[in-house]
Amino acid sequence: MLRALELAAQGPEANANPRVGCVLVADDGTVVAEGWHRGAGTPHAEAHALARAGARAGGTTAYVSLEPCNHTGRTRPCSEALYAAGVRRVVHGQSDPNPAAAGGAAWLRDRGVEVVGGVEAETAAALNRTWTHLMRTHRPWVTWKLATTLDGRSAAADGTSRWITGEAARADVHEQRARCGAILVGTGTALLDDPHLTARRPDGSLRETQPIRVVMGMRDLLPDARVLDDVAPTWHLRTRSPKEVLDALAAAEVHHVWLEGGPTVAAAFLADGLVDEVVAYVAPVLLGRGRQSVSDLGITTIADALRLAPTDITPIGTDVRITALLKEIC
Amino acid sequence: MLRALELAAQGPEANANPRVGCVLVADDGTVVAEGWHRGAGTPHAEAHALARAGARAGGTTAYVSLEPCNHTGRTRPCSEALYAAGVRRVVHGQSDPNPAAAGGAAWLRDRGVEVVGGVEAETAAALNRTWTHLMRTHRPWVTWKLATTLDGRSAAADGTSRWITGEAARADVHEQRARCGAILVGTGTALLDDPHLTARRPDGSLRETQPIRVVMGMRDLLPDARVLDDVAPTWHLRTRSPKEVLDALAAAEVHHVWLEGGPTVAAAFLADGLVDEVVAYVAPVLLGRGRQSVSDLGITTIADALRLAPTDITPIGTDVRITALLKEIC
Repeated sequence: MLRALELAAQGPEANANPRVGCVLVADDGTVVAEGWHRGAGTPHAEAHALARAGARAGGTTAYVSLEPCNHTGRTRPCSEALYAAGVRRVVHGQSDPNPAAAGGAAWLRDRGVEVVGGVEAETAAALNRTWTHLMRTHRPWVTWKLATTLDGRSAAADGTSRWITGEAARADVHEQRARCGAILVGTGTALLDDPHLTARRPDGSLRETQPIRVVMGMRDLLPDARVLDDVAPTWHLRTRSPKEVLDALAAAEVHHVWLEGGPTVAAAFLADGLVDEVVAYVAPVLLGRGRQSVSDLGITTIADALRLAPTDITPIGTDVRITALLKEIC
Repeated sequence: MLRALELAAQGPEANANPRVGCVLVADDGTVVAEGWHRGAGTPHAEAHALARAGARAGGTTAYVSLEPCNHTGRTRPCSEALYAAGVRRVVHGQSDPNPAAAGGAAWLRDRGVEVVGGVEAETAAALNRTWTHLMRTHRPWVTWKLATTLDGRSAAADGTSRWITGEAARADVHEQRARCGAILVGTGTALLDDPHLTARRPDGSLRETQPIRVVMGMRDLLPDARVLDDVAPTWHLRTRSPKEVLDALAAAEVHHVWLEGGPTVAAAFLADGLVDEVVAYVAPVLLGRGRQSVSDLGITTIADALRLAPTDITPIGTDVRITALLKEIC
């Protein structure tokens, strides 16, 4: 199973589909074939392994990090494929949280295949944390990214903000963007900063897969906005409602949204309880005044402050990255 | 010398005097006696070791972390004491940066004592970083402490600020206060928050030595202000000038000032270039609005931002403590 998880991790994190790995093992312990899912439109992990195994799949045990799917999408159900190939036993990690695809274990059991579930299930689920969140809640996982000075400024008084954080932190942002299905800003930020909202490598080149660039808000974008070029898809959603934006993204199977602000959009998401995680890059810089990272949240007294649960604190170059979950921990 | 540094570190950091350790070693390598300085009014490290050695001091080598002093203060010059005891050789770390006390090495050499200086000098100087700073610049080292939310707030909109950081960070603040000679706030903070400005142990009890509590500003304090009780000395300096405050503290031999704000005082010190170090406690908390940690610094564009050099980043409980030096690193 640990090998299946390793294989799964090779899959593309930003893809609409979950990352899954599969190992077919013969009775004598020999690995017959391995497979993993490379993203929507390509074979599922089980199909990948079965194709590599050919006739040798018969009688094997399939270790799969996620319960085999039971629905016909772009590919046939994996439950059927495993059964048809003569797989004798299936050991899976996470149970399928997708109601449309679940039931694979039961379907196989009904046909006499031995099924053991829940092996390394937590690790398997963590591998697809944002996808699992979408399946369970029908809305994407939202990570709000902010870059701030020690005194809480996201831009100087004249609006300039390049750069508050150092090169290493900015490279890290591009890595994190690449792991998401969409990057979201408001029209305010789009008009003020004219960001490109792409995921680049440290050498400046574009990564192969780009998140959808989403600009929300009622104002028109400038026709020559950088975000309107053709290196990645761009959606301008004419709404101020975070929920409407997330609904549109959920419909497009986006499970991880990277929210880059500005302060009005960030406040709207926070006030609606639609931020799941904060990634804050804090730079050892002082400005005294300038733009805030977030607008009024309707909080007036310290007892009502939004208290987050940090999951990671990592120095990056001269900055520090603080990752925290938006559950109240009081 | 490393043992002398260990001994020195046992001395009180907040004291007006530097921390010094001394080891007397016989020709055959035997340690004859050790000593260290316990603070103003007690014997210097050399005198402490000499007293313990008695007649056995003759012919020894004295390892001292700081060049032996050459002036008569509360005690006689250590140069004289070492010479009189028959010490044959003196190996010292940091050279004395105090013009009033320097010259001990030369005085001893003139009398035929072999003197080797500069051994582990950097480590020795680091042990007395703030005292060395006072000796060299004639003003105390200023550490500005701020406690802030991720979005840069030091208090909620209604002024409440207890507590932004967690218990562990607050305990750390008390430890840091105890290492300083003075704690400084403005009358604004004194009137608004009515702080006690004491150094306490985790169990809430007062530490034995308390920094001077300094309130600067023109406004009167309330007669029942907590800062006016008798657990520690309190100075109300009726000035808005950071330089005047530091001059007064330098005259009292305070070499380390712990500046706790508020925003106006912090901005005044920063604008005058009188902050040497920042210790920022960043809490995983969001407020949206509220009091800033620092007021206008006259910086309008990102290119003019004050860029600091971080020296330490340490998670403390759920918060993170960022220590940084106020030299421009652009």
